[in-house]
Amino acid sequence: MSRETDDLAAVAEPPEDEDLEDLALGEDYALNPEFVSDVADALDRGDADRLRELIAALHPADVADLMGFLSADAREELIPHLDPETLGWILSELDTEIREEVLEHVPSATLAKAIGEMESDDAADVVDDLEADKRAQVLAAMPETERAAIETTLAYQDETAGRLMQREVVAAPQFWTVGQAIDHFRKDGEELPELFFDIYVVDPAYKPVGAVPVSHLLRSGRQILLAQIMEPVTEITVDLDQEEVAYIFDKYRLISAPVVDTAGRLVGQITVDDIVGVIQEEGEEDILALAGVSDAGRDAGVWDIVRSRLPWLVLNLATEAVAVQAINAFQGEIAKLVTLAILMPIVASVGGTAGTQALAVAVRALASRELTAANSVRIVGREMIVGLMNGSVVGLVMSVATYVLFHDLRLSLTIALALLVNLFVAAAAGILAPLTLERLGRDPAVSSSVFVTFVTDLMGFLSFLGLASLILL
Amino acid sequence: MSRETDDLAAVAEPPEDEDLEDLALGEDYALNPEFVSDVADALDRGDADRLRELIAALHPADVADLMGFLSADAREELIPHLDPETLGWILSELDTEIREEVLEHVPSATLAKAIGEMESDDAADVVDDLEADKRAQVLAAMPETERAAIETTLAYQDETAGRLMQREVVAAPQFWTVGQAIDHFRKDGEELPELFFDIYVVDPAYKPVGAVPVSHLLRSGRQILLAQIMEPVTEITVDLDQEEVAYIFDKYRLISAPVVDTAGRLVGQITVDDIVGVIQEEGEEDILALAGVSDAGRDAGVWDIVRSRLPWLVLNLATEAVAVQAINAFQGEIAKLVTLAILMPIVASVGGTAGTQALAVAVRALASRELTAANSVRIVGREMIVGLMNGSVVGLVMSVATYVLFHDLRLSLTIALALLVNLFVAAAAGILAPLTLERLGRDPAVSSSVFVTFVTDLMGFLSFLGLASLILL
Repeated sequence: MSRETDDLAAVAEPPEDEDLEDLALGEDYALNPEFVSDVADALDRGDADRLRELIAALHPADVADLMGFLSADAREELIPHLDPETLGWILSELDTEIREEVLEHVPSATLAKAIGEMESDDAADVVDDLEADKRAQVLAAMPETERAAIETTLAYQDETAGRLMQREVVAAPQFWTVGQAIDHFRKDGEELPELFFDIYVVDPAYKPVGAVPVSHLLRSGRQILLAQIMEPVTEITVDLDQEEVAYIFDKYRLISAPVVDTAGRLVGQITVDDIVGVIQEEGEEDILALAGVSDAGRDAGVWDIVRSRLPWLVLNLATEAVAVQAINAFQGEIAKLVTLAILMPIVASVGGTAGTQALAVAVRALASRELTAANSVRIVGREMIVGLMNGSVVGLVMSVATYVLFHDLRLSLTIALALLVNLFVAAAAGILAPLTLERLGRDPAVSSSVFVTFVTDLMGFLSFLGLASLILL
Repeated sequence: MSRETDDLAAVAEPPEDEDLEDLALGEDYALNPEFVSDVADALDRGDADRLRELIAALHPADVADLMGFLSADAREELIPHLDPETLGWILSELDTEIREEVLEHVPSATLAKAIGEMESDDAADVVDDLEADKRAQVLAAMPETERAAIETTLAYQDETAGRLMQREVVAAPQFWTVGQAIDHFRKDGEELPELFFDIYVVDPAYKPVGAVPVSHLLRSGRQILLAQIMEPVTEITVDLDQEEVAYIFDKYRLISAPVVDTAGRLVGQITVDDIVGVIQEEGEEDILALAGVSDAGRDAGVWDIVRSRLPWLVLNLATEAVAVQAINAFQGEIAKLVTLAILMPIVASVGGTAGTQALAVAVRALASRELTAANSVRIVGREMIVGLMNGSVVGLVMSVATYVLFHDLRLSLTIALALLVNLFVAAAAGILAPLTLERLGRDPAVSSSVFVTFVTDLMGFLSFLGLASLILL
C-alpha cells in the first residue's frame, strides 16, 4: 500500500476515463466541486453504474478525500461500492471522526478483507480504532498469521517505532551470495513484502549486521557474497518515539532502517514513506500547539471544535485578568492622564509579537536540534541582545511618533523606555519558556504561548505605567 | 548521497571507535557538548591525528552539525581535514550562512571534487550559492558532463520539481524482458545512479509509460516483459512548485516519480527522501510566517536576526497605532470610569487568541487541502458558529467574574457582549484572511497574523468602549 495502485495521470487508460480523471481533480490536485456533486447526484439517484465509473476514475487517496466532502448519509451509501483494496487504503487515510463512523457501518467480514490488504502498521491503527465487540469479530474473520501480526503491533506503544514499522521484512544470512539471494526471492516471491528497498543481512542470532540495497544486488555479480557489498545500517529500537525516528531519517537521509527489539534482533523495518506522514503530523502539531488549539479534524462537529479551543481561551482570560492588575494599580495615573490608556496597549501588543517571534524560532530550532545543550547559553544571550536592539529601534520610532502627536518629551521618553524593557523581557520569555519546558521533558510548543503572552502583557502595562508614574506624574 | 555512508550505530567497526561514537552523540542524537569541546581543543592544539580520529567517529550529517557549534575560525581550520565525500555531504546540509562562509575558504579544485560526489540537485544548490568568479573556476575544474548537468538543473526555477529532481534515472524500453534489463544493469553498472528504486519504462519518444519497482524485477522470471509487470506512474512536470510535489508524494504515498519536460519526455526523477526535506522546510516556513519572522539561520549574526524581525514589529506598531484610535475616541468615557481601561485589554487579548486559533487551523487545513473551494462555505460558516459559541461561554465567565469584583450588572453585560462580538469577529478574520490570501495566489500564512491581530485589537477596544458608552454612561 505504500505506492500508487492506480493513478490520475495513469497512462494506457481508455480515453473516456482520462476525461473523467481530468474532470475529477483541479490544477492543484484538489477534487473539483463539480465532480463531488456528480458523485452526490449519482448517490441520490442510486445510479450504481455511474458511481462505479466515477469512483474508478479516482486514486484511492482521492476517494478518501471525497469521503470528507460528502455527507454522513452519502458516505454510508458509497461504502458498498468500494472494493476491499480501495476500502483498505481509504481506512488508513481518513480522518479519525469519519473513520470511526465508517468502521461502524462496514460489516466485519468486509472489514477483515480490507484490513488484510493493508500493511501491518496501517492495519493495526484501524483495528485499534474498533470497538471491543467489532474488533473481536473482525480479528476472528482474519487468517491466524495476520491476526497475530496485528496483535503484536498493537502491543507496542502508540507513536513509537514499533507501531510505525512494517513487520514484513526481507532478511538474508551473511554467507549467501547475490545469486542465492536472487534465486530465493524469485522462488519464494509470494512470501516477500509487496515492495522492498533493502535486504537486511543478519547474523545467526537474527541481529542485523548490514543492508544491501536492492539496486546494488541487481548490479552485482551472482557469485559475490552479500557480506562483501552490504552497507552499515542505523538500527532503530522498537520503543523509540516516532519524532526521534523522523529526526534520524531526515538527518541521515535514510530510505529504510531495520527495527530491532531490546535484544537487538530484527523485528521489522521502517521506510521513509512512513516518515513523511510523521513529519507532516509533527509539524502540524507544533503549529496548532503554538496557537493554543488541538486539531479537531476536518469533519469535527461544532461542539468538538469549541471543546478544542475553549480551555485555552479561558486560560488566556485568567492570565489576562492577572496582567491587568498592573493597570489596576495605576488607576490614579490613568485618571490624571487618559493618554496613558491609549498608549499602553501598544507596548503590550508589540511585546507580544516580539515574544511570539522568539518563541517560534526557538521551537523550530529545538525540533531540528539546532538548539541544544551545547549552544543554549550562546543562543539565549543572542536573543537578549536582539531584544535590546529591537527594543531600541521600536522605542525610537515610537518616541518620535509620540512626540509628533503629543509634543511631550517626557511621554516620548516613557514609551521608548517601556518598549525597550518589554521587548527585552519578551525575548527572554520567548527563548527561556520553550527551553525550560524541553529540559523538563515537556513539549516546548505546548503552553509556551500562553506564558509568553501573559509575561509581555503584564510587563507591557507595568513598565509603561510604572515609568509614567516616575517620569511624568 | 541519499543514504548513510557511515554510521553512528555502524556495526563491524573496531571497538575503540564505537566508544568514540558513543561519546559523540547523546541519547537524543544531538552532539554532546563534551565532544564538541574535544574537537575545539584538538583544533586549538593543531592535533591533526586526534582530529582525524574524532571526525572519523562521526557521520557526515553530524560533522555538518558540528560545524554549527564551532566558531568561524575553528570551522576554517577543520575543513582541510575533511575528505571530498564528507565535504560534499556537509555542503548540502549546512545552513546558508555557514555554507557561504565555508565556500569562500575552500579552494576551487577541492570544491569541484566535493561537488562531483553529490547528486545533481544538491550539487546545483551549492554551485548556485557560489560567487560569479568562484563559480566559473569550480565549473571549469569539473568534467564536462557534470558541468552540463549542473547548468541544466540551474536553468530551472528555484523551489520547482526541476531543481528538486536528480537527473540520474534508470529507463528501459517496453519490449525489454526482465532478463535483458538485469543483464544490462549488471554490465553497465558504472553508468547507473548509486541507488535507485524504480525502472521507468519509456516509449520510443522517451515518454514514461510505467514503472517497475526494483524489488518486482528481482522476483519476476527472466522471460517476463517489463510492459507486463509495470505499474502506472504519477508524472511530475519540471515546473511544478515543490510544495505541490510534496503534497502529491504524501497523498499518493509515492516512493519515486518520473519528472517530465513540457513535451512529456523523461528528464529526471524525484525520490521520497528529497521530499522529507521539503516537508520539513514548508512546515517550518508556516510556523515562522505565522509568528511574523523569517528564519535567519542558526548561525546568523545579531544584525541578521534583528533584520528578520524588525519589519514585522514596526508593522505591528503601525497597525496598533491605528487600533488605539478607537480608545482615543472614547477618552471621555475612560476619564469618567477608569475601570474601562483595566478591562478593555482583556477583550482585545482573548479576541487575539481566538483569531490566532482559527488562523492556525485554517492555514493547516489549506496546506493539507482539507479546506478547498468544495467546502469553504461550510467551513467558514462553522468557524463563525464556533466564534459565537466560544464568545458566549467566555463572555458568561467574564461577566460573572466582573460582577463579583465590581458589583455592576451593566458593566458585566457590557464586557460579556463585547467578548461575544470580538470572538465572532476574530473567528471571521481568522478564517477569511488566509482564505482570501490563498484565492489571490499568496501564501496564506504570511501576513495573516498581522491582520488578525489588528482586527481583534481594534474590535476589542471599539466593541467594549462603544458598548460601554451606550449601556453604562
